[in-house]
Amino acid sequence: MRDRLASWRPRIDEAIESLLPREIDEEYLQRFFGDPSYAYDPDALQIALADPMWDLLDRGGKRWRAVLFLVLVDGLGADPDEFVEYACIPEILHNGTIVVDDVEDGAEMRRGDTALHLDRGTDIALNAGNAMYFLPLKVITQNPAGLDAATRLETYEMLMHELNRTHLGQGMDIAWHNEPEIHVGEDEYLEMTACKTGCLVRIVTRLAAIVTGQPDDVQETLGAYAEDLSIAFQISDDVLDIENTLDQAGEFGKAFGNDIREGKKTLMVIHAAEHADPESVARLEEILWAEETTDDEVVEAIDILQSTDSVEYARDRAAEFAASATAHLDDLDLDPEAADALEAFATYVVDRDR
Amino acid sequence: MRDRLASWRPRIDEAIESLLPREIDEEYLQRFFGDPSYAYDPDALQIALADPMWDLLDRGGKRWRAVLFLVLVDGLGADPDEFVEYACIPEILHNGTIVVDDVEDGAEMRRGDTALHLDRGTDIALNAGNAMYFLPLKVITQNPAGLDAATRLETYEMLMHELNRTHLGQGMDIAWHNEPEIHVGEDEYLEMTACKTGCLVRIVTRLAAIVTGQPDDVQETLGAYAEDLSIAFQISDDVLDIENTLDQAGEFGKAFGNDIREGKKTLMVIHAAEHADPESVARLEEILWAEETTDDEVVEAIDILQSTDSVEYARDRAAEFAASATAHLDDLDLDPEAADALEAFATYVVDRDR
Repeated sequence: MRDRLASWRPRIDEAIESLLPREIDEEYLQRFFGDPSYAYDPDALQIALADPMWDLLDRGGKRWRAVLFLVLVDGLGADPDEFVEYACIPEILHNGTIVVDDVEDGAEMRRGDTALHLDRGTDIALNAGNAMYFLPLKVITQNPAGLDAATRLETYEMLMHELNRTHLGQGMDIAWHNEPEIHVGEDEYLEMTACKTGCLVRIVTRLAAIVTGQPDDVQETLGAYAEDLSIAFQISDDVLDIENTLDQAGEFGKAFGNDIREGKKTLMVIHAAEHADPESVARLEEILWAEETTDDEVVEAIDILQSTDSVEYARDRAAEFAASATAHLDDLDLDPEAADALEAFATYVVDRDR
Repeated sequence: MRDRLASWRPRIDEAIESLLPREIDEEYLQRFFGDPSYAYDPDALQIALADPMWDLLDRGGKRWRAVLFLVLVDGLGADPDEFVEYACIPEILHNGTIVVDDVEDGAEMRRGDTALHLDRGTDIALNAGNAMYFLPLKVITQNPAGLDAATRLETYEMLMHELNRTHLGQGMDIAWHNEPEIHVGEDEYLEMTACKTGCLVRIVTRLAAIVTGQPDDVQETLGAYAEDLSIAFQISDDVLDIENTLDQAGEFGKAFGNDIREGKKTLMVIHAAEHADPESVARLEEILWAEETTDDEVVEAIDILQSTDSVEYARDRAAEFAASATAHLDDLDLDPEAADALEAFATYVVDRDR
């Protein structure tokens, strides 16, 4: 299975290149975007679209959304080769949101290099990032798998639903980030994560269900798997940030105490705010809200999280969500090899150490 | 006709409010975005979505895209009342692009007030702006006019086509803006404008054709009307910026010599670069490229544009595009009152003085 997963990676990149070549020319522009009314400027579009997009894509990223999609298509009894272009939809969308998020957060680094908007300018980066929201959806019009009209309509409606909810999740996260108090509860946190992180993964699994013609209940179950998996992933990511900070292992592309410095309202922070004494909560809020944070203050904030066993609590919750994700798979009639891969994936997101 | 146009304005705002209420509550979130998996945070979404969006919408804007849509629906023999929600699609999309453009350009002002990203933070503004790309498309799923599946699919495909081209146009404009030389020709300029400004207006007219069930040739003709109208509008806008600068009438929400200071590659600039002596072209490029521009330099640049009759040339080209827009109307079997309104609209965009 692992060999087969690895073997898809070049096919995925080839498909991305068919949607967005590294070298833009007239022929591509005409084929992909239609005849110009006057004349395209391929050189300008090389700078505005192809260069920034491939800069980001070439920085790595495991293309796991595309691979997950193909594993699912396979597991549902269809031929992944027929659907490689569709695998690019969530992959390119995801990379687009990364560019936009970095502008929103004022991030300085991305995948071990300067964030795109600092490297190429906010104008170029943001337009390219937003173009990545629409460019991959052309696959549905191009219709390489010969889907009928009802299936294509269902694909659009699913995408619009999930992309709307993505912006709800991001909106909640930003609004919380912009206020000093920690007043949000666990349910709101889980909703935010389900929307912000989960909807893009729901696109992966629901798209696989739709294009292979699964009944609604299979699509729903796969959506639930994706949501639980994403929540497990996000909580684990936040826990890892704290654990790496404790190990002073700041070299994983993240600065020391990144989330504390950013003032992120993680599940650990929310749990601590609910269980610590008022004085500690006030101090935690103060450190998270501060413009500048010393290393000692980062450690102090983590001490507060640990005084309420909030790191352990979050680690347990992540494991529960991973288990819940896996449990959904039992309701499906998946090819056993694919089911194993999906289960391994759920285990991986909570067991990884970076 | 003018009374009827004015009478639609409150109906349009009411329809926008049905898509995006001024006050966000659980009931709306559930109805519009579906049941939460855990719990929405309406207060956070008030701050993240409703407040910034209505801040911008309440700053004015004539909602002319929505009105144009309704005039067309009427002129094509359908009942505008049935399609008011669809009129919100291009209107909200347009307002979303404004927020994003202002972030890209680092604009300071918008509609006589502080640009949204400076007022509320880049994170809030950008997420709200991008949310406006997807939120209005929910109308197609809600399907208030009871459109059949084929029509809804056609609507999505049209929108994705035009929104992709919008990002091509913006990309070309940005790439040119980021280089000191003026090497682009008139055809590339017209393509950029057709994409960047035209595609959103093409959405207005093509959407009216699609939802009222017009044959393809009517939709194409209306798309051509929209494109020519938009080019006429954009060239006139650039000419007006120069004329207002000459009158020192900088109070129209724009600073003195705005486009020159920004280094915008307008049709006038392109025409001058093709017709002026090399020394003047080099000086024009220098002034447009400079970080800081004095009032004297603005006047000097305009002198170069006038030495080649480039302002007059652009004014003539705008009139030609307005005439071409109007000529398309002859190919259509529109209600005469609507045809008059569309013709008046084309005349207005080139004859206005602000």
